[in-house]
Amino acid sequence: MRNENGIQKNGQPDDAFQVFQDIESAVRSYCRRFPAVFATARNAVIEDEQGRQYIDFLAGAGALNYGHNNPKVRDRLVEYLMSDGIAQSLDLHTSAKKDFLRAFQDVILAPRGFDYRVQFTGPTGTNAVEAALKLARKVTGRRNVVAFTNAFHGMTLASLAATARASKRAAAGVSLHDVIRMPYDGFLGEDMDSMDVLEAMLFGPGSGVDLPAAIILETVQAEGGINVASPQWLARVAALARKHEVLLIVDDIQAGCGRTGAFFSFERAGIQPDLVCLSKSISGYGLPMSLVLIRPHLDCWEPGEHNGTFRGNNLAFVAATSVLDYWRDQAFSESIARKSRLVGERLRAIRDTAPAQISAVRGLGLLQGLVFNDPQLANAVSKAAFERGLIVELCGPAENVVKLMPPLLIEDDVLADGLSRLAEAVRACMNAAADLTLRLDPLQPVMG
Amino acid sequence: MRNENGIQKNGQPDDAFQVFQDIESAVRSYCRRFPAVFATARNAVIEDEQGRQYIDFLAGAGALNYGHNNPKVRDRLVEYLMSDGIAQSLDLHTSAKKDFLRAFQDVILAPRGFDYRVQFTGPTGTNAVEAALKLARKVTGRRNVVAFTNAFHGMTLASLAATARASKRAAAGVSLHDVIRMPYDGFLGEDMDSMDVLEAMLFGPGSGVDLPAAIILETVQAEGGINVASPQWLARVAALARKHEVLLIVDDIQAGCGRTGAFFSFERAGIQPDLVCLSKSISGYGLPMSLVLIRPHLDCWEPGEHNGTFRGNNLAFVAATSVLDYWRDQAFSESIARKSRLVGERLRAIRDTAPAQISAVRGLGLLQGLVFNDPQLANAVSKAAFERGLIVELCGPAENVVKLMPPLLIEDDVLADGLSRLAEAVRACMNAAADLTLRLDPLQPVMG
Amino acid sequence: MRNENGIQKNGQPDDAFQVFQDIESAVRSYCRRFPAVFATARNAVIEDEQGRQYIDFLAGAGALNYGHNNPKVRDRLVEYLMSDGIAQSLDLHTSAKKDFLRAFQDVILAPRGFDYRVQFTGPTGTNAVEAALKLARKVTGRRNVVAFTNAFHGMTLASLAATARASKRAAAGVSLHDVIRMPYDGFLGEDMDSMDVLEAMLFGPGSGVDLPAAIILETVQAEGGINVASPQWLARVAALARKHEVLLIVDDIQAGCGRTGAFFSFERAGIQPDLVCLSKSISGYGLPMSLVLIRPHLDCWEPGEHNGTFRGNNLAFVAATSVLDYWRDQAFSESIARKSRLVGERLRAIRDTAPAQISAVRGLGLLQGLVFNDPQLANAVSKAAFERGLIVELCGPAENVVKLMPPLLIEDDVLADGLSRLAEAVRACMNAAADLTLRLDPLQPVMG
Amino acid sequence: MRNENGIQKNGQPDDAFQVFQDIESAVRSYCRRFPAVFATARNAVIEDEQGRQYIDFLAGAGALNYGHNNPKVRDRLVEYLMSDGIAQSLDLHTSAKKDFLRAFQDVILAPRGFDYRVQFTGPTGTNAVEAALKLARKVTGRRNVVAFTNAFHGMTLASLAATARASKRAAAGVSLHDVIRMPYDGFLGEDMDSMDVLEAMLFGPGSGVDLPAAIILETVQAEGGINVASPQWLARVAALARKHEVLLIVDDIQAGCGRTGAFFSFERAGIQPDLVCLSKSISGYGLPMSLVLIRPHLDCWEPGEHNGTFRGNNLAFVAATSVLDYWRDQAFSESIARKSRLVGERLRAIRDTAPAQISAVRGLGLLQGLVFNDPQLANAVSKAAFERGLIVELCGPAENVVKLMPPLLIEDDVLADGLSRLAEAVRACMNAAADLTLRLDPLQPVMG
Repeated sequence: MRNENGIQKNGQPDDAFQVFQDIESAVRSYCRRFPAVFATARNAVIEDEQGRQYIDFLAGAGALNYGHNNPKVRDRLVEYLMSDGIAQSLDLHTSAKKDFLRAFQDVILAPRGFDYRVQFTGPTGTNAVEAALKLARKVTGRRNVVAFTNAFHGMTLASLAATARASKRAAAGVSLHDVIRMPYDGFLGEDMDSMDVLEAMLFGPGSGVDLPAAIILETVQAEGGINVASPQWLARVAALARKHEVLLIVDDIQAGCGRTGAFFSFERAGIQPDLVCLSKSISGYGLPMSLVLIRPHLDCWEPGEHNGTFRGNNLAFVAATSVLDYWRDQAFSESIARKSRLVGERLRAIRDTAPAQISAVRGLGLLQGLVFNDPQLANAVSKAAFERGLIVELCGPAENVVKLMPPLLIEDDVLADGLSRLAEAVRACMNAAADLTLRLDPLQPVMG
Repeated sequence: MRNENGIQKNGQPDDAFQVFQDIESAVRSYCRRFPAVFATARNAVIEDEQGRQYIDFLAGAGALNYGHNNPKVRDRLVEYLMSDGIAQSLDLHTSAKKDFLRAFQDVILAPRGFDYRVQFTGPTGTNAVEAALKLARKVTGRRNVVAFTNAFHGMTLASLAATARASKRAAAGVSLHDVIRMPYDGFLGEDMDSMDVLEAMLFGPGSGVDLPAAIILETVQAEGGINVASPQWLARVAALARKHEVLLIVDDIQAGCGRTGAFFSFERAGIQPDLVCLSKSISGYGLPMSLVLIRPHLDCWEPGEHNGTFRGNNLAFVAATSVLDYWRDQAFSESIARKSRLVGERLRAIRDTAPAQISAVRGLGLLQGLVFNDPQLANAVSKAAFERGLIVELCGPAENVVKLMPPLLIEDDVLADGLSRLAEAVRACMNAAADLTLRLDPLQPVMG
Repeated sequence: MRNENGIQKNGQPDDAFQVFQDIESAVRSYCRRFPAVFATARNAVIEDEQGRQYIDFLAGAGALNYGHNNPKVRDRLVEYLMSDGIAQSLDLHTSAKKDFLRAFQDVILAPRGFDYRVQFTGPTGTNAVEAALKLARKVTGRRNVVAFTNAFHGMTLASLAATARASKRAAAGVSLHDVIRMPYDGFLGEDMDSMDVLEAMLFGPGSGVDLPAAIILETVQAEGGINVASPQWLARVAALARKHEVLLIVDDIQAGCGRTGAFFSFERAGIQPDLVCLSKSISGYGLPMSLVLIRPHLDCWEPGEHNGTFRGNNLAFVAATSVLDYWRDQAFSESIARKSRLVGERLRAIRDTAPAQISAVRGLGLLQGLVFNDPQLANAVSKAAFERGLIVELCGPAENVVKLMPPLLIEDDVLADGLSRLAEAVRACMNAAADLTLRLDPLQPVMG
Repeated sequence: MRNENGIQKNGQPDDAFQVFQDIESAVRSYCRRFPAVFATARNAVIEDEQGRQYIDFLAGAGALNYGHNNPKVRDRLVEYLMSDGIAQSLDLHTSAKKDFLRAFQDVILAPRGFDYRVQFTGPTGTNAVEAALKLARKVTGRRNVVAFTNAFHGMTLASLAATARASKRAAAGVSLHDVIRMPYDGFLGEDMDSMDVLEAMLFGPGSGVDLPAAIILETVQAEGGINVASPQWLARVAALARKHEVLLIVDDIQAGCGRTGAFFSFERAGIQPDLVCLSKSISGYGLPMSLVLIRPHLDCWEPGEHNGTFRGNNLAFVAATSVLDYWRDQAFSESIARKSRLVGERLRAIRDTAPAQISAVRGLGLLQGLVFNDPQLANAVSKAAFERGLIVELCGPAENVVKLMPPLLIEDDVLADGLSRLAEAVRACMNAAADLTLRLDPLQPVMG
């Protein structure tokens, strides 16, 4: 698929990036790792202005579970646009929203026996998290929220306070308050159960930690390094929260919408959170949309108490309704499970080629990764993959985990092709490292 | 335009709202004031499922300056969708973003002699404000930000701290820190210059107010009651900020993009803010998009230091590029000015019919309003207008200002029609109030 | 009185300060301005180890209103010590505390018609302020407290948040929250009534300032530059606070206990605060003691909810009971008034000798000062006074006010002597400045 | 020693407490548990106005290590008073302070090889803690401070944030920020090493806990329930802090000054903290005094950056100098050790009489306690002891620990007498409980 002729700078003309360098803020980031100007895409393949194609294991950081430009959805969008369907409606009632609510109730909530109210928030994940935190604090009259090590919940102030990454936190420029940090499953190693620590510190006598309003968590920490909480751990959190009348918020923004196999990532633990945040792939076409699911007795918002202009992005409602069809039968989940097994097998095979450098294969569903001991090697692998036409990013506190997150609808052969490119990239990096070690380069140590 | 046959509940069938009542969160708000299920729209006219049409003076709370479903933009969107153009790209380079950046530079920045870097943030206004506050704090190493009485900057925690409305603030559930409140132009009445107070309190010896990182303001406070800052006041803020090395942030989310006549609302004051927040109508089709303009020497972000999945909403970039064409010649601004004069004249005429009840006509450009002494009367007028097929909302700390914000592209006759309906609604309410007073109803006082 | 023989370093032997330099923290401050090792004292005269005597217009920063080592009190203390009276009792009942409470009720509260509960706090002023703020927040359930420009309330975190001085605030090392700063009487100049600003900003619609728990103020700001609030201004604060159910806290730590003539500094305004903080001269011998007066219906403390080991410093209770005798007849207040007039006259005479350098004489009672335009000149005057055997300190945000605070019991001739030394010091500094000016150094201002 | 005739209300006349009930704030606390009006005292015996005597195992909550009214100190105080020695001096140099500094250097610091600067703060423990926290934050430029479960550091805002007791914290009325809570030695039970948790949570990658300025701890938590940290645990804290350039603050206010045997409570761990807070018994006569010891390179205070009127309480300096004589030879420590063994033996014997009710004997030196399973039983024991002429208080998060803290100089026979009274009180309560159980009293349940 990849154009192989050797144009300089990964084949981009010299001035391709000029306007971005001249005008776009220095904050831009992914474009530095994947330097190309992308033009078109279809499902798991994305193409740049030079016609070069890449297999996309980034998938809009989880916003494109149903692939780029899913034609089924696209046709619905065009039809809606051409019929003068309302595009933007604040929180007015619209036909498009009505259709979405009905389908979400019928396809997702009812079959699982879930009773939730739906709040449409400003259409970014962080807006949904902020709404959930606000509501939890309002309902309980308490201020603190428990968040976990390696958590990622967003970049606006309340979400950022709950986020663990030091560099993101430092950028706040103000003190980040009202969050209690607790160790995630596995953070304290194998010998200590982090939930014992949480129980003692939150609820033990004399702990000095004020009773929190809520516990917020991701069931799989994607940005945090693909850390998967066990169902037992999740069930214990849920039970403790219920016992002490602390709300449980699941931030299912990245791991939800099928990423781990089921629609909700917490289904495997048999729990029902008090509040659930959804965004990213909820609209199914990469269109901005977010929502908070609220257990009915907690829905104590006053009208307009939390608002936002774009909470009525009707194109997103149309798309979101359309992709719910995938969840009408069991086959979709099964296809995810099947692809997940393939990914797991191939990753373990890659690890076996470099057991000294790759410490683990981690993940769940189509959210899996290779854990490198050396972040520089992980970085080299991502670059080598890009040279081989594969987009795959890094995660974890040390950016040492190569994270695979292909569209759930990726064709089997494209998935296999992408995994082969990754294997090739790893092999190339291992060889380069070996060369370097042999040459004993005194200026550039192999290990950072 | 309006279907006049008298179906109950403003013509909605009994079960039209059922799914919303059953499943949507109690936080929904506009839909309570304007109870209908809207289906389609074109420019300034919106139609519900029963085929009833309404003139829209709400315009997506300012997100629809170019009208509903602007056909020029719509055609570009469909074309882009059909060509498999990238929909969602995080902050990767895309052709659609490149086109927008070039057009924005050529059409907006260069002609005004403005030198700004563009940061794409999560696509809600509050995300843009959070980014601007964060950057200001980072650049200066200071924590406090000055915000004004009656300000509205958003609902996520840092923006909310800067927002004045008591009910919104209370919903935070935590202490809102790091904001210093100062009186807006006119807040202290005619005899006191609020800028004298600001100068003494921020910069006077012994004031006890820590030097702030930034001053954030709207040049016209829309939610706050349509308060218009004078050019002199704005120029003095800008001069004071510059002198003391405090950044000036203009939140132009509602008043920008032509709402007050010029593209930026601050052009009339001859100032150039350090940071400018744009959202709402920047995409021109109601699609979620936000950006922060940053004076180049302040663009000290580290890559990825502030991020968000949907900052690459390419459909919005396509639309945003398209509507910039309106700004290529002077005629657009002139048409806004012309319509503004019409609105002003008609509002003053309405006020003259009820000088005891309507204390002022306020506003700038196509953001104007009638100030009622009695909030209940303002509320009644909004309801009476809706019954007459006009959507017009309230604002101000007491919800006593009827706020007109029609699309800038509204046809002259539709605008005139809408204003007539408003006049009729006012007249009806005045008559009803008079009746009530005559009947001396002892249970329901006329004045709240 | 002063030993005039010219020993170097103001007559101190070379190694007199060695142990302080070697072991005491760099935070020490007054000892740098007044470099001597003091040994004994009596009323307004203090003597160093070399036998040099100084008239003391500093008076323990207001803790020695009844003079150094008042013999009447001293005798009571010795008697108490020799009888094995309890020295330290936490908050147990003791005979000494009982005697104090009875005397305070009889001599101070009852004659003024005041009904207060007495809380003994940890024996520093800042502990009393912290207790008052805590109680106000508890009673009202609100967080914010209003404090004024140029306020000084102490150095522990809650008091420090209310304190205005920038250098003190910066030392906190954390954000100082939950305080709203408002302009003190006169801070905004003659043309603006700062109370109008306060009323609008605290209680006006849309102000964006959350309703505070309390307003805390000094009726005369001593550290802040000897700013005297007018009785009218104080009465208006009290009325506004009452109207809006905001508590009024008077920090009478420095200005109370007779410093301004009456026992409480607020008596001149005819107000009765909800909470009053007393410390400094309440014990009358410079012994640590503090208390909070609480209107009975506000005394909603749980037992032990605020505590502190040394709140039972019985030697201080003994001394405090003893000095209350001064308040049993009117003559004491009258003597303060008489001395105040003398100080005022002499200060105005000094000002008239240098009207270009001294902009004002300010103050009330025996808390008065000379306001210099140039802080360096104020500093020189304090130094020149010390060389002439007079201890007089500086205050104000620019340290440009020479502050006179002699013991209230100072003998008339010693007071007159001290004022003469001050006049002489001013004259010497004016001459030195004139000399320097004559030499016309245009590049290097007089003091570096 | 005790007057046995049975006057009602523990022998107090009816109106003995009237003035306290009428005028003193409801916050008073110890006086409710020990209802008497105390008049005189000598070493470990205290006498009320009725002539009733009590053995004092409370000892001013640790402020009377050298006994009530130590005659040696008393004579020095009277001599100083009669010689017109300076009583109150702010932070001016005085002869009394010089003498204290020299003696403290010679007797305490030099023999231990400690190099510290001495900061005199406002004379309460909480003022010393606030100063230490402030300095740690200033030196490091960081905000957070680590404090432990069950910690007690004081009642002013920064100290209170570090304090664990929920009821004290709630009284703040504001959010308590900038403190990270960690589990103290033993808090997580025997199977988990709380220091492993601390290391991971403070210094592990991705922990999401911002690097703290300091770790503050008591080596024995007195208020928290007499929890003794092991020397190994303390040494590991110190090593971790040093490694990560986090300051170690030991709050030795209650456990220092000989309470645990050595002058500093941390000597047994072989560590040298960066900052040490001393108060309570540092003055040796119950006179208010506090200081912070600062490693010289950390003494970066600006002059006056932290201040307070009563930091120059010279009577306390005189007393503090006097009691340092006890530390000039080894015999004093040895006598404490001997008495400690006696206390331990007797407490274990008491426990053995009621092993089902008393779960442990805990403590170090002359700070030991009986841990009751039922707080109501602990409460009953304290009351029964008071009836038997013994003052002994409770501590621990559930107030279930009877805490013994006699003066270090208590005579052996008085100590033995006090322990016998305690044994008798326990026995009486056990019998009463047994009676109650037998009689199955339906009105007063045995378990609360």
